[in-house]
Amino acid sequence: MKPVSVGIVGLGYWGPNWLRNFAAQEGCTLAWGCDLNVERVTKFSRQYPATRFTKNVTDMFGDKSLDAVVIATPTSSHFPLAKAALEAGKHVLVEKPMTGTSKEAEELVALAKKQGKQLLVDHTFAYTPAVQAIATMSHEKKFGDLLYFDSARINLGLIQKDTNVLWDLAIHDLTILAAIADLADVTEVLAIGSAHYGTHIEDGHLHLSFKNGFAAHIHASWLSPVKIRKTVIAGRKAMITYDDLEPSEKIRLYDKGIEHDTSKPDPFFPKYRSGDVLIPALPMKEALATEAKHFLECIRGKEKPIVSGEDGLKMVRILELANESLEQKKAVKTGF
Amino acid sequence: MKPVSVGIVGLGYWGPNWLRNFAAQEGCTLAWGCDLNVERVTKFSRQYPATRFTKNVTDMFGDKSLDAVVIATPTSSHFPLAKAALEAGKHVLVEKPMTGTSKEAEELVALAKKQGKQLLVDHTFAYTPAVQAIATMSHEKKFGDLLYFDSARINLGLIQKDTNVLWDLAIHDLTILAAIADLADVTEVLAIGSAHYGTHIEDGHLHLSFKNGFAAHIHASWLSPVKIRKTVIAGRKAMITYDDLEPSEKIRLYDKGIEHDTSKPDPFFPKYRSGDVLIPALPMKEALATEAKHFLECIRGKEKPIVSGEDGLKMVRILELANESLEQKKAVKTGF
Amino acid sequence: MKPVSVGIVGLGYWGPNWLRNFAAQEGCTLAWGCDLNVERVTKFSRQYPATRFTKNVTDMFGDKSLDAVVIATPTSSHFPLAKAALEAGKHVLVEKPMTGTSKEAEELVALAKKQGKQLLVDHTFAYTPAVQAIATMSHEKKFGDLLYFDSARINLGLIQKDTNVLWDLAIHDLTILAAIADLADVTEVLAIGSAHYGTHIEDGHLHLSFKNGFAAHIHASWLSPVKIRKTVIAGRKAMITYDDLEPSEKIRLYDKGIEHDTSKPDPFFPKYRSGDVLIPALPMKEALATEAKHFLECIRGKEKPIVSGEDGLKMVRILELANESLEQKKAVKTGF
Amino acid sequence: MKPVSVGIVGLGYWGPNWLRNFAAQEGCTLAWGCDLNVERVTKFSRQYPATRFTKNVTDMFGDKSLDAVVIATPTSSHFPLAKAALEAGKHVLVEKPMTGTSKEAEELVALAKKQGKQLLVDHTFAYTPAVQAIATMSHEKKFGDLLYFDSARINLGLIQKDTNVLWDLAIHDLTILAAIADLADVTEVLAIGSAHYGTHIEDGHLHLSFKNGFAAHIHASWLSPVKIRKTVIAGRKAMITYDDLEPSEKIRLYDKGIEHDTSKPDPFFPKYRSGDVLIPALPMKEALATEAKHFLECIRGKEKPIVSGEDGLKMVRILELANESLEQKKAVKTGF
Repeated sequence: MKPVSVGIVGLGYWGPNWLRNFAAQEGCTLAWGCDLNVERVTKFSRQYPATRFTKNVTDMFGDKSLDAVVIATPTSSHFPLAKAALEAGKHVLVEKPMTGTSKEAEELVALAKKQGKQLLVDHTFAYTPAVQAIATMSHEKKFGDLLYFDSARINLGLIQKDTNVLWDLAIHDLTILAAIADLADVTEVLAIGSAHYGTHIEDGHLHLSFKNGFAAHIHASWLSPVKIRKTVIAGRKAMITYDDLEPSEKIRLYDKGIEHDTSKPDPFFPKYRSGDVLIPALPMKEALATEAKHFLECIRGKEKPIVSGEDGLKMVRILELANESLEQKKAVKTGF
Repeated sequence: MKPVSVGIVGLGYWGPNWLRNFAAQEGCTLAWGCDLNVERVTKFSRQYPATRFTKNVTDMFGDKSLDAVVIATPTSSHFPLAKAALEAGKHVLVEKPMTGTSKEAEELVALAKKQGKQLLVDHTFAYTPAVQAIATMSHEKKFGDLLYFDSARINLGLIQKDTNVLWDLAIHDLTILAAIADLADVTEVLAIGSAHYGTHIEDGHLHLSFKNGFAAHIHASWLSPVKIRKTVIAGRKAMITYDDLEPSEKIRLYDKGIEHDTSKPDPFFPKYRSGDVLIPALPMKEALATEAKHFLECIRGKEKPIVSGEDGLKMVRILELANESLEQKKAVKTGF
Repeated sequence: MKPVSVGIVGLGYWGPNWLRNFAAQEGCTLAWGCDLNVERVTKFSRQYPATRFTKNVTDMFGDKSLDAVVIATPTSSHFPLAKAALEAGKHVLVEKPMTGTSKEAEELVALAKKQGKQLLVDHTFAYTPAVQAIATMSHEKKFGDLLYFDSARINLGLIQKDTNVLWDLAIHDLTILAAIADLADVTEVLAIGSAHYGTHIEDGHLHLSFKNGFAAHIHASWLSPVKIRKTVIAGRKAMITYDDLEPSEKIRLYDKGIEHDTSKPDPFFPKYRSGDVLIPALPMKEALATEAKHFLECIRGKEKPIVSGEDGLKMVRILELANESLEQKKAVKTGF
Repeated sequence: MKPVSVGIVGLGYWGPNWLRNFAAQEGCTLAWGCDLNVERVTKFSRQYPATRFTKNVTDMFGDKSLDAVVIATPTSSHFPLAKAALEAGKHVLVEKPMTGTSKEAEELVALAKKQGKQLLVDHTFAYTPAVQAIATMSHEKKFGDLLYFDSARINLGLIQKDTNVLWDLAIHDLTILAAIADLADVTEVLAIGSAHYGTHIEDGHLHLSFKNGFAAHIHASWLSPVKIRKTVIAGRKAMITYDDLEPSEKIRLYDKGIEHDTSKPDPFFPKYRSGDVLIPALPMKEALATEAKHFLECIRGKEKPIVSGEDGLKMVRILELANESLEQKKAVKTGF
């Protein structure tokens, strides 16, 4: 089988991880790297002598033998770069958030479809062993009907200048949420928050209402004295907590819930069930290695995207609606 | 000094604690106990032989020598009993929530004023060593300008049938909040939640907006696999966490925050300050003993109510507005 | 079936719990209570009107219709009281430590045998849901061969004047240890510790060596800034931790261990197994209720003592050897 | 000032950290690197083009302009390499344990003295911000007279083949201990442990008795289901805990202790003091950077070794005595 030829655009903070991970994949050639910064180009040229590095993305996109492109640049350039790559006939994996607006995301989705190319968005959490275990439990109906999802991602800093804390942090919780629920079922988005230092909210809450009564709440903050990354998922049959700061015991599955005690005359007499707690062993795998392999398998037609362009679009749309909600100071309908 | 003569109405769950605490107070006579249940009347008569016990509250209120009454009955009877007691010229300490409606609460406040009697509401948390320490720190301006208040009071059960989780649990967080901020400054109330088992919301969020940009969020739930009682208070100068499940190290004061690094050219360049954490030793005192003494001191004119009728009214009003917000599915103005 | 008639000697700290628990047992008459302190006699007479209370233990022991006696007095009086009760033909449940010397304990064991009466020792931990769960797991061979037992029981105070920290605190860990191993297999006892305030060691370590290579270590301290009650039990097949300060999740069963990786050429190449962790739900039962019922069932011949006189004797003997080890500053053989 | 010229011997696991840290030091030239493995030599030659790399240590030691050598090879080669380096007139920083025997360590100490060269041993913990903070508190007499030191360093694996768990893990706790007490004051060493899988003990306890009644206990284990790195230091004036697994709040200083309540008639009536807990902010510094700088300052005569050859020798001697204690199955005198 011919190896898939891959190029990375953007070698700043995240791009080098992609270099390392695609260099290590079997059935793959790390063909190109690209960055506007010439020092990075020089540095990585030395480190990956078999890979071509350039300042000029058109060199890379013009290479007919290049199959796929990973875009790890700042958000504002995602759209033009992904568009150019798709137009050049490349499969694309683009950093989250997919684009700055849902209109752009829609255009990319349509373009990828027209070109018959894969378009994936790098929501890395979807590839962590913990979230994949949660997705599997959800798929196996372990939770029963979902009651609520509650997630906190709070710490001190780093305040971003060009975006609010929901786009920066809550997007990870949305990725976890997408492992158990279809974001297309969100009917209403309500965001609330305040800006005390910069111009965008630094401490915010995002509430999502789903069709069937299920509700999600995410607290994201750059202004917390303590660092917390904790998610609670409550279903009728079981509940879980997910603490990403735990080194290995990240997930706890609780055999807990409420049942109707029919032995009592009352119309509803709750009986509380409090059974065992299970902490499943999770494989020790780097999410990016899993994701790199998955991108290659999607290109080979052997897997379907775990986070497709459509999924990335829904995230952007929800965050866009969150911004609208913040401006209008009320809940907004998704119209999904 | 003549001892204050006190009577307790309602000897079910909470009332016996009042019996015990007023019996132990100096300068106080535990004169009366009252309950509709004759077995309780008999039982406590044996235990407190110097106290008169009755099924009939008019016996108690008719006693001219009785100075003060504690009302520890179900919420629906708070208003008629407190009204009757005030009309009979007694000082009153009534359980939280003060009444079922703010209209009733207002009537009691006006009546107490007219009668020249003390009217206090038993928000017990206000008398815990932890909350009193927080109140002192706030009074000493330790936190600086307040940024946000975030509190979680979640566990599995006990689902109440006649009220929602905000009236049952979030009321405690409102009491903690009142230790650092004036609830009269709340401009908007937003509540959101869902009912999966009963008829009232079992998992809910309460957002309060204050005049000066300060915001409060409370998560209350009867549907959580884990029990949490945790509050974060973030101010410009310092931040604290308060974990009520910790046996002794309940409060942590963080010398943490964000400052403008003026050495940088940028208009706002945040500098993160991360100093020492202090866990203050808290006195080992029963909140109810502190509160019983305080009620007596208010009657003697030596202290001012920590939780007055006006304070209790504000709590009821905010919870009432929370119910309105739930019905209208949007934020409602307080009109304070 | 004729109810078992029970009397309690010693109504200070622990005795009242026995009054309450035997009063609540079915098939049992709480016939007698005894204490040298006349105020206690008066107080409990009022509370338990159907029970006879006395200052004079010979009144109680002389009652032919009395079947069984619980001895909850200070340690120094255990021996004469238990001896007198057995000689009077009563079944006996005596507080831990059983006696002050193993010689006395041996005499009681022999006497009970001669009289054909039950002799149990109140090592309460043996009746807690957590320790009973551990005992069951051990019985089901869940741990495999035992490697080591490690337990810490440390906090600030309360320094005892008449005994050392091993007799005061480590005795509880010995009780837990006895749930998984036979103390008769202890071959060597080594104790080490220091006295900084009083005359007996306040911070001490107890090491027990067992026949088969299994080893136990207990750290007991009155001089710790933190309160810890934690036990680790490591077996070849599984390991557990037991944290008695956890309100409900006290036991964690780890599917962890080491195996020989036979695929490697080396004589021993360890392979580390790190599977799921299970936190079993434990029943919410008061240990003393379980123990009271068990004592009655032993008297009725339906159960065998969980902590017999022989067991109590072994505990006393090990603590006695610990004292010898402290004096001789070396390990001492048990001679079991 | 002429820069100090440094060479690193051994580029396996730890050596590369020294390369990186000395390359980053001011007033220092990273002149040489040496490893028997030619692939490593090639790899680091590329990475540090200004440094000479060799397979042959005599090349390095023969370089007259080389001032100092860091030895990061397996323990068995520490002695011959350090000896050769000292004989060649180099200052030496050697990995812990300094040597395999105290006799060798003594020879190195004497040789360094004769040559007038610095000899330091890399006990890295001594340079961590946490241990340096503890050392400072000790120096400032914050703890008062020391009562005991208790440390646990336990986890599952990695079982070493050529040494026991005390030499592998407890050596770190000895380093922490040396921050508050002089190991020359140890009078007796007692070790106890068992080997269940390999030939050396895998779960062990080390007890040290000091001249003045102070006692230390270290539990080291490769057979624990949980990973713990926790130290308690109890003094008459204050106590601390040090948890190295905490990301930032590693040290807690407790204003706790016991005093004689002289208001009571009894000869000793303990009064328990339980004041505030302070969690000091620790600087975020890499221990190895601090240590590299310190080594250079010692060479320049501006600082005195924090862990000198004499200190390293004491550690080796104590571990050697621990081995003797294991063999003799009793405490052994240090003869210090």
